[in-house]
Amino acid sequence: MTTPSIITALTVRDIRFPTSLEAHGSDAINDPDYSCAYVILETDTGLRGCGLTFTIGRGNEIVCKAIDAYKRMVVGTHLSTIYGGFGTFWHKLTQDPQMRWLGPEKGVTHLAVAAIINALWDLWGKIENKPVWKLLASMGPEEIVPLIDFQYISDVLTPEEAVEILKKSRAGILEREKSFLNSGYPAYTTSAGWLGYSEDKIKRLCRQAKDEGFTRFKVKVGLSKEDDERRLALVRHEIGDQCTLMVDANQRWDVQEAIKWMKPLTKYNLLWIEEPTSPDDVLGHATIAKALAPYGVGVATGESCQNRVLFKQLLQAQGLNFCQIDSCRLGGVNEILAVYLMAHKFDVPVCPHAGGVGLCEMVIHLQAFDYLGISTTQHNRVIEYVDHLHEHFVNPVQVAGGRYMAPTAAGYSTEMKESSLRKYEYPSGSEWQRLFSEGKFTLN
Amino acid sequence: MTTPSIITALTVRDIRFPTSLEAHGSDAINDPDYSCAYVILETDTGLRGCGLTFTIGRGNEIVCKAIDAYKRMVVGTHLSTIYGGFGTFWHKLTQDPQMRWLGPEKGVTHLAVAAIINALWDLWGKIENKPVWKLLASMGPEEIVPLIDFQYISDVLTPEEAVEILKKSRAGILEREKSFLNSGYPAYTTSAGWLGYSEDKIKRLCRQAKDEGFTRFKVKVGLSKEDDERRLALVRHEIGDQCTLMVDANQRWDVQEAIKWMKPLTKYNLLWIEEPTSPDDVLGHATIAKALAPYGVGVATGESCQNRVLFKQLLQAQGLNFCQIDSCRLGGVNEILAVYLMAHKFDVPVCPHAGGVGLCEMVIHLQAFDYLGISTTQHNRVIEYVDHLHEHFVNPVQVAGGRYMAPTAAGYSTEMKESSLRKYEYPSGSEWQRLFSEGKFTLN
Repeated sequence: MTTPSIITALTVRDIRFPTSLEAHGSDAINDPDYSCAYVILETDTGLRGCGLTFTIGRGNEIVCKAIDAYKRMVVGTHLSTIYGGFGTFWHKLTQDPQMRWLGPEKGVTHLAVAAIINALWDLWGKIENKPVWKLLASMGPEEIVPLIDFQYISDVLTPEEAVEILKKSRAGILEREKSFLNSGYPAYTTSAGWLGYSEDKIKRLCRQAKDEGFTRFKVKVGLSKEDDERRLALVRHEIGDQCTLMVDANQRWDVQEAIKWMKPLTKYNLLWIEEPTSPDDVLGHATIAKALAPYGVGVATGESCQNRVLFKQLLQAQGLNFCQIDSCRLGGVNEILAVYLMAHKFDVPVCPHAGGVGLCEMVIHLQAFDYLGISTTQHNRVIEYVDHLHEHFVNPVQVAGGRYMAPTAAGYSTEMKESSLRKYEYPSGSEWQRLFSEGKFTLN
Repeated sequence: MTTPSIITALTVRDIRFPTSLEAHGSDAINDPDYSCAYVILETDTGLRGCGLTFTIGRGNEIVCKAIDAYKRMVVGTHLSTIYGGFGTFWHKLTQDPQMRWLGPEKGVTHLAVAAIINALWDLWGKIENKPVWKLLASMGPEEIVPLIDFQYISDVLTPEEAVEILKKSRAGILEREKSFLNSGYPAYTTSAGWLGYSEDKIKRLCRQAKDEGFTRFKVKVGLSKEDDERRLALVRHEIGDQCTLMVDANQRWDVQEAIKWMKPLTKYNLLWIEEPTSPDDVLGHATIAKALAPYGVGVATGESCQNRVLFKQLLQAQGLNFCQIDSCRLGGVNEILAVYLMAHKFDVPVCPHAGGVGLCEMVIHLQAFDYLGISTTQHNRVIEYVDHLHEHFVNPVQVAGGRYMAPTAAGYSTEMKESSLRKYEYPSGSEWQRLFSEGKFTLN
């Protein structure tokens, strides 16, 4: 096979799943129709890279529009320009002298960048015929560091320090790869704990997850104190004292409210409270983390943390005890590597956010590289898992016995089935047309 | 005239001015074509409210698309629902359970919210037949506070505290109004200090501004140390020792770099360094502010600060000495009021960002209300002024003798001339068609 040399086209498709019909993913803040802006990059040899950014429904078309705006900086670009200086290309994309006003590096435009960068990683993996985790693990420190844009983080992490970390972490990489290929990476389940579910459903799902081998569970909280107590008692009873339990407030509280709300719940022996308040509030997270530390509850956040600058500060201020990178909120693999390296420096475990559309597929690659080449450990680390929508991917993530299995196909596991794309493209897809005609949905 | 009761339509237009052709607005980071997403709200009586959000060119269409997505939450809404509980309506708009994923409250979607909220204020002023500053000044504390969404800031400012501040600040309001109507509000000029200008042009513009009555000047820095020294020496020489000089790096530096770069420049007696680093870096700003304090240079930031949560932290961490709210980056008047109140509590002067398209027109209303009803002083406060593009507004801002004059027309001064809209609508406007056909611009 000839190696492709240039990006010849970029197509974006608005893909949405009507998950709100069944209250999948419901929490104190969100009522989602899991969606994604799906990018297809074409090359001169016909090899394609596919990437996506996750959203929860309305507004997905805005992200698609933003991806269109970046097209001029991607199509016609030589792959040697991109992969030969990927950090520089990433910087160019995020720092366009007019587009950057719309962020910089946050919100819609950063989500759009993530979809494109993810597609470029899928393409790179396919060119090298390796899954992305293996592609990363086969690079030396001097190859990894130029992937990263160190702007605005050099006060905490310099390229030289990053090289040092990566060099030190190479010892034993082959043994860790063997262990990962054999037994995968631990997962936790959020499937049982959505707010919209009945108690019977929660019980059933807890038992089912235990039977499947899960030992770590997460429950949504924050709408009603009484309801939180009742559901936590229920889940703790179902899973027993040996299992790990986390809770997630999805930004429901103000700072002091978070502390007050959480104190009575600490009796359920909770590993972390996730997103207690605004994702932007570094100092607020630090205040909450300090107040809850005596109760043994850590603070976790990240799925809505806009960029490496925010994570830098959360680490500096001791505002988080568990760092939950999101494969689409940050600007793709390149920026995520920066966050993994900073978290390692501050000795904070990364436990990626997943679920949604395709997040599980991606984060196993990232977390595997953290294990192989950065933190070198799975201690105190776990990846979120939600068993939804995997059937739409060509190489869906494999989870068995409560553990993610190592992806083996080349690329970033982000390619979706054409049949699914046709069915769920919004609003023209056959499933949406059916829902509209049956009056179950109204076109936004 | 009958009072309108309902919003019947929302139209958004993509308006762009080809300012990059003359290097207006050039700095260390941006090369702008000053633009705006322009919103027209129509009502059942024919009365219209006009509002805008500022961008610098490419990507303006993404903001327009986002405004379209909010239409469903605005059109058909009764004005009593909006103005009767404006803080609640604002919260609903920014916290839509699906759209909020795209922010929350930042980037493209927040810029879109700003345009809509600004148009609603223009409409409100027109309904009450008052300029917005006067509308605000005529409200009691118990009417102002419900305009504000206190979510995520109650650890620093509660509604009760806000009422207290506003009550206390009413003393002497009539005298201050008289003084404002008589002599306006002090301005500073950025017109002389753009990076793209020649030395002769800078000299000429400094003299011209001094002749016009300006005593405060701002210069862009950050591309080259030698060039910064040369231009600062030049400007300080032209304006003399009695005038105030500020510098602006437009986010060019990392934290330690900012400190190193600035130290030699402090000999030019600078009031502030503006945007020394990433607008997201609260702790970085605090580090820079602490390092430069002994040299008498303050830190200013705000034009790219995404929301009230960021300002809250900048104030908490002593990361800014001058608070530069932006009338379009924050979610319109409602959120800006929260920032003014917090700044007052921390005793930090607000010096609004202006220039661009329509920013000068808006900020004089806001700063006037700060003077009349919040801080009650003009001490250490000044509004940016750039003499560009005012001719496109129906009620352009008036600046004389280096001072903003009080706006007298009803509304928020945000209505643009239909002739300008037709000429500069992108890409169909007559001026753009001319530039395309003459080969001076290529359609993005």
